[in-house]
Amino acid sequence: MQAILTHLTHLLGEAGIVRAAADKAPYLREWRGRLEGDSTAVLLPKSTAEVAAVVRLCVQHGICLVPQGGNTGLVGGSVALKQQNSLLLSLKRLNRLRAVDAANFSLVAEAGCVLAAVQQAAAEAGRFFPLQLGSQGSATVGGLIATNAGGTMTLRYGNMRAQVLGLEVVLADGSIWHGLRGLRKNNSGYDLKQCFIGSEGTLGIITAACLTLVNPPRHPRTAILACASPQQALAVLGVLHADLAAFELMPQLAIQTATTHSTGHSTGHSPSCRNPFTTPYPWLALVETHNIALEPALATLLEKNLILDAVLAEDSVEAAQFWQLREAIVAAQKQLGASLKHDIAVPVSAIPAFLDAAARVVEETIPGARLYAFGHVGDGNIHCNISQPVAMCAAAFTAQREAMAMLLHDLALQHGGSISAEHGIGRFKREEFHRTVAPVELAMMRQVKQSLDPKGIFNPGVLF
Amino acid sequence: MQAILTHLTHLLGEAGIVRAAADKAPYLREWRGRLEGDSTAVLLPKSTAEVAAVVRLCVQHGICLVPQGGNTGLVGGSVALKQQNSLLLSLKRLNRLRAVDAANFSLVAEAGCVLAAVQQAAAEAGRFFPLQLGSQGSATVGGLIATNAGGTMTLRYGNMRAQVLGLEVVLADGSIWHGLRGLRKNNSGYDLKQCFIGSEGTLGIITAACLTLVNPPRHPRTAILACASPQQALAVLGVLHADLAAFELMPQLAIQTATTHSTGHSTGHSPSCRNPFTTPYPWLALVETHNIALEPALATLLEKNLILDAVLAEDSVEAAQFWQLREAIVAAQKQLGASLKHDIAVPVSAIPAFLDAAARVVEETIPGARLYAFGHVGDGNIHCNISQPVAMCAAAFTAQREAMAMLLHDLALQHGGSISAEHGIGRFKREEFHRTVAPVELAMMRQVKQSLDPKGIFNPGVLF
Repeated sequence: MQAILTHLTHLLGEAGIVRAAADKAPYLREWRGRLEGDSTAVLLPKSTAEVAAVVRLCVQHGICLVPQGGNTGLVGGSVALKQQNSLLLSLKRLNRLRAVDAANFSLVAEAGCVLAAVQQAAAEAGRFFPLQLGSQGSATVGGLIATNAGGTMTLRYGNMRAQVLGLEVVLADGSIWHGLRGLRKNNSGYDLKQCFIGSEGTLGIITAACLTLVNPPRHPRTAILACASPQQALAVLGVLHADLAAFELMPQLAIQTATTHSTGHSTGHSPSCRNPFTTPYPWLALVETHNIALEPALATLLEKNLILDAVLAEDSVEAAQFWQLREAIVAAQKQLGASLKHDIAVPVSAIPAFLDAAARVVEETIPGARLYAFGHVGDGNIHCNISQPVAMCAAAFTAQREAMAMLLHDLALQHGGSISAEHGIGRFKREEFHRTVAPVELAMMRQVKQSLDPKGIFNPGVLF
Repeated sequence: MQAILTHLTHLLGEAGIVRAAADKAPYLREWRGRLEGDSTAVLLPKSTAEVAAVVRLCVQHGICLVPQGGNTGLVGGSVALKQQNSLLLSLKRLNRLRAVDAANFSLVAEAGCVLAAVQQAAAEAGRFFPLQLGSQGSATVGGLIATNAGGTMTLRYGNMRAQVLGLEVVLADGSIWHGLRGLRKNNSGYDLKQCFIGSEGTLGIITAACLTLVNPPRHPRTAILACASPQQALAVLGVLHADLAAFELMPQLAIQTATTHSTGHSTGHSPSCRNPFTTPYPWLALVETHNIALEPALATLLEKNLILDAVLAEDSVEAAQFWQLREAIVAAQKQLGASLKHDIAVPVSAIPAFLDAAARVVEETIPGARLYAFGHVGDGNIHCNISQPVAMCAAAFTAQREAMAMLLHDLALQHGGSISAEHGIGRFKREEFHRTVAPVELAMMRQVKQSLDPKGIFNPGVLF
């Protein structure tokens, strides 16, 4: 290890390699404290050529690399572990916005650009980058692509995969693939960028991306609709589908918790959340549309008795309050003690049956546990977060973590679903992934890994 | 070969294997007659299990397989050649529509379903399948996926890749990958379906797909706009972008040819084409929107002098006539003698510069040749079709085919473009592909091929 560190210091300069424990700490710690990482040094290359040179050195010395973006992932995918003879490579300094091409509805950003900077650059060019998620101030382009991030607007604009037109990637032999095309149509051989998107840093190091832009929403409108059941919410989704940017579903329990325990207003960091209804409707759907007048559509839904009630946000402040209701659920649950969280997707049509079955499984397994099943119902992605029963201690509750995950994952798979909708597998879900994946599918993934990273130098322990 | 044929006959039955020359002919001939295929027998399995059994037999006997859908491809990708010890496998009998799930906006179709049947099934469920192209009566789901087909509505709905939620594939060892998920979000390891989409039958045999549906256009509107230049057309595109389903650009030369030589009306097979303008405007843009009132947008464009003129189709009959103007260009060009065709894409912003440069290159190389550069400008896909000079014989003109292709491909690449936007590489473009692809990229493609089809049994001679 010492030999390569001398080479790396020479290559990257003092600013490009961090060795003091205190300085390394923010890069090594899994941000929720679930895993303590370790790396003799943290590498901070500032160009694609430097990344390539680092890879070549690591290949020569038999050292593995753990690529890291904003370190905001939820599955431990960017943590370097002591036993794996690996070095952590942060893309943070590779953060130039290389080009904005408004006429092509595209821009080229390096891997270390944070999402908010991409959104800002798009806005300055009169365009809009349609991926939005909680950590946009810290999540980076490279990480978003490596994890195929989701967010709230998948329904209209797709996941991160759909935003990527081209990639620049440093490969496992240290060569650079210059695939930064800005094309919507290109059928010249295999679409290689697809291999790297969502590969969680295991096949190559993404150094830059050409991303697609759209026009800003012309008439952004946000409303909250009251529904009697998930079935009714799906009927609404069926009607509004083509016009929806977002469609989030929340049960009454989550609304109560969010409005009771919301701390947003008091901290001043975010608008207070607001439930526009005094009636405790069983389910609320938060809808956002971008380019239509939502009023006539809501009137029709009410006329046809497809919803119980509806409130349209009068302005962007009220729209933000509605969104805060949705966002406050996670924060508010923290006040209820320990949580078990699950990132599940099922076919949209299977949501009602899945929700019923999940409620039964949770109650049977941990009586009194409170299931908060909410989320991006428009694309089938339901976050099943469970709060501990009032009369149970946190330790006894969290001891059920693996058992509960297995039950809910099995249930998701029985409904044609996924055990990881938008967070990925990383290290935390690796065992569950291997338990549930079809052998034919896992074998193919190993073949792809073997073909693009034959020596296994990228992100060991993630996925495999 | 005789040994395997006995086994195959036993496996597939008499209806599943075609050996008479006359019966084989439609499967063997490249449909424009550019290449004569050969296969001792044509295999017509009617289930995924049969396809898998065929693959296992072929592996045992060292025989390759050429998968074929509707045999409507443009690059010779579904032609079995004599020298390659291969058998042609048609997916035509694997044509069941397995399931329609309107609430999930999805359906499951087998590889041999024709596109029109998928569109029909979607319509019967109150939904819409948004891929539309000329050969929809014969192109099949498997072929559309294997070639990542494009069409006229990529701008809004994406290519075929964007319509695929899940796949069932018979792999190179004869095992079956059951990946028919109906999910919008799934980050459980590599997204393997992406490897097979656009792989032109070289990595596995797609036997079924779960496809995504949308709601039918609420207010379909078609208009033709008159523009002074491609630059002006791009300005219009920049304004209308979020609302457009299609945006096709046609030069005056193409309009003249289409209206002069159109045969649609006389054959009775299609509506006559119609140029709504008497003024010979330099460029016409055909726009289609699905969910907005187009009138106010056109009024604004006229007010701001972003267009020279505009005509909105009054009804679906007139809309069809406008589309026929676009479609008639290709047919009308046949009346002008021999053609050299090119399926090019460039970044949308590079279209004006590319068109200028292409016109210069064509005139310098073959003085008097007539360049018809038209097409899906909304996604950067320009079909550069060149008609022979009036005073030149066809043979002398077509002798320039390779030289002209090289020049235009080089030009496309200089503008950040692609030598194959939507048709693929197949056999016809293989040499050009190898001449122009970056070695790093080709090496990666070979690695992927090697990993998923190590013995090279699928579609030899295509891509590689």
